[in-house]
Amino acid sequence: MAPPSKHRRATVHDVAAAAGISRGTVSRVLNGGYVSAEARAAIEAAIAEVGYVPNTAARNLVMRRSQAVGFLALEPHSLLLEDPNIGAIMLGANEVLSVADHQMVNLVVDSARDTERVARYLSGGFVDGAIIVSARTHDPITRVIAELKLPATFVGHPPDLHRSIPFVGIDNVGSARAITERLAATGRRHIGMIAAALDRDSGADRLTGFRAALGARFDPRLVAEVPLYDYASGVKGMRELLEREPGIDGVFAASDAVAAGAMEVLRDAGRGVPSDVGIVGFDDSSWASRTQPALSTVHQPAREIGRNAAELVLRQLRDEGPANVLLPTPIVWRASA
Amino acid sequence: MAPPSKHRRATVHDVAAAAGISRGTVSRVLNGGYVSAEARAAIEAAIAEVGYVPNTAARNLVMRRSQAVGFLALEPHSLLLEDPNIGAIMLGANEVLSVADHQMVNLVVDSARDTERVARYLSGGFVDGAIIVSARTHDPITRVIAELKLPATFVGHPPDLHRSIPFVGIDNVGSARAITERLAATGRRHIGMIAAALDRDSGADRLTGFRAALGARFDPRLVAEVPLYDYASGVKGMRELLEREPGIDGVFAASDAVAAGAMEVLRDAGRGVPSDVGIVGFDDSSWASRTQPALSTVHQPAREIGRNAAELVLRQLRDEGPANVLLPTPIVWRASA
Repeated sequence: MAPPSKHRRATVHDVAAAAGISRGTVSRVLNGGYVSAEARAAIEAAIAEVGYVPNTAARNLVMRRSQAVGFLALEPHSLLLEDPNIGAIMLGANEVLSVADHQMVNLVVDSARDTERVARYLSGGFVDGAIIVSARTHDPITRVIAELKLPATFVGHPPDLHRSIPFVGIDNVGSARAITERLAATGRRHIGMIAAALDRDSGADRLTGFRAALGARFDPRLVAEVPLYDYASGVKGMRELLEREPGIDGVFAASDAVAAGAMEVLRDAGRGVPSDVGIVGFDDSSWASRTQPALSTVHQPAREIGRNAAELVLRQLRDEGPANVLLPTPIVWRASA
Repeated sequence: MAPPSKHRRATVHDVAAAAGISRGTVSRVLNGGYVSAEARAAIEAAIAEVGYVPNTAARNLVMRRSQAVGFLALEPHSLLLEDPNIGAIMLGANEVLSVADHQMVNLVVDSARDTERVARYLSGGFVDGAIIVSARTHDPITRVIAELKLPATFVGHPPDLHRSIPFVGIDNVGSARAITERLAATGRRHIGMIAAALDRDSGADRLTGFRAALGARFDPRLVAEVPLYDYASGVKGMRELLEREPGIDGVFAASDAVAAGAMEVLRDAGRGVPSDVGIVGFDDSSWASRTQPALSTVHQPAREIGRNAAELVLRQLRDEGPANVLLPTPIVWRASA
């Protein structure tokens, strides 16, 4: 009999035909059952001949488990490429899933077409659970996960509508407050903030913390609102702040990438950091050690966040109760303020 | 009847039981067949009640197609997080697969345990094909893909043993030669290279091109070998070159990240770029526009590479012949040389 064509996987049927033995007997061998030594040899030769590989996907379906967990970052893809945190969260999650013998599958969501197809994929039995970074309440994927009751974990604050799904996060308000207080303690008089992503909990919370730290000294004129946590937003925000208040001497940037962009603008404007302007960031990503001078910032335990998110999904798969996790965020004081 | 427990997916059987109708009739409705309006209403109510979602994974298995394509970057994970090219390749591939209604699944390989499990995943029927960035001949995953005859595309030069698998790449020798010639034409006398990843085709080819451009002027003493295409390797390589030849006035860095690290060292050493030392990179990644001054470099069409890689996998799935693709790499001349 001809071997199966190039792109069709060989089946048990092909093995049986090549061995000249019934399909039931072949199945018995594959499942470890008893057959004569002669039949076993014939079957093993046939397996090699037709290139048979057991179909794990099929076997898992019978078990109703795919042994796979989806990982989705619902961020604009431009940010995804620039944000070293997401990579670290991903590797942390993979570490824990790997030890538990689960395959992590990263799904890109980069268009409306992707959203639809990924939602179908998640509901189609390909994964047992999911980790979602930057979920939003009305996101169609968030909705599908909630409706399916797919074991899931949010990284970051959970959207209001989906309180039944646990989350792993940090205290953005408290962290932003702490680093702003530290910046103020260096004697700065005109402290501004480049506030990014105010449409998200993390962004809004960081502004709340900044405001709380300054109290009566808070000046809304010194808040530049920018869309994303990225370098380009930092450039834009710093230009605005310099225009509004040339005497600005302290800046809290909502992320390290934003701070790096702001430092670029300050350098071009001939302002010394930290001599003229003290600047602090948020994340402690690889950006923070690359800036000149090195950036004082809030440490986000990205890998640890990923590990905890994976652990929370596995707990649900073991039918253990979910529990939210808030991780600590130490301040790392370097040279920029 | 009780609804299925939280983490077991509802089945057609659950729907039939809840509707009080035979399983065959339920299947007929789900497949668009004719039943009475009454039965249809009962079945629709039962579907809502038990939370039934059709299992696409199961249906695809019958078709022997998962409609999914794996994406693997076999790089050290530290590089993966720093290399903006890989992200762009990934998004380019996703774009094409998405339009063809295929789900791209990114698989992280970060440990021996991952390697084994990912190899099993690839052979287990979960994907119809794969895109592999930085494949190496003896890599177990590369071997599994070749043995399975899984429709696949390599990004970068194909490992020697696997010529049957098509690749998408660039002409590293020609590109390195062209940019080195351009650097030499600015009148530099002592041109060195920070040569990264010489254990890979791309790294070895870039050194070959550099050598060819300089001809008799090539000085092996002015080649610093470093392990990776990253920033830290650039710092290390530039320190070595300065030590060996303080009069060095031109540097070809094997990647933009390497060039950024080298520029850091030059700044610390008080050398002006391009006044004292002209420097050129490779990739035209986001690093190139972030350096001060902006980097002259070779443009790698990363997104286009990703698009072509996906297209080559789809061609194989349509049983069209594979064909290797070499993409053009224009020089982008900025301010660093």
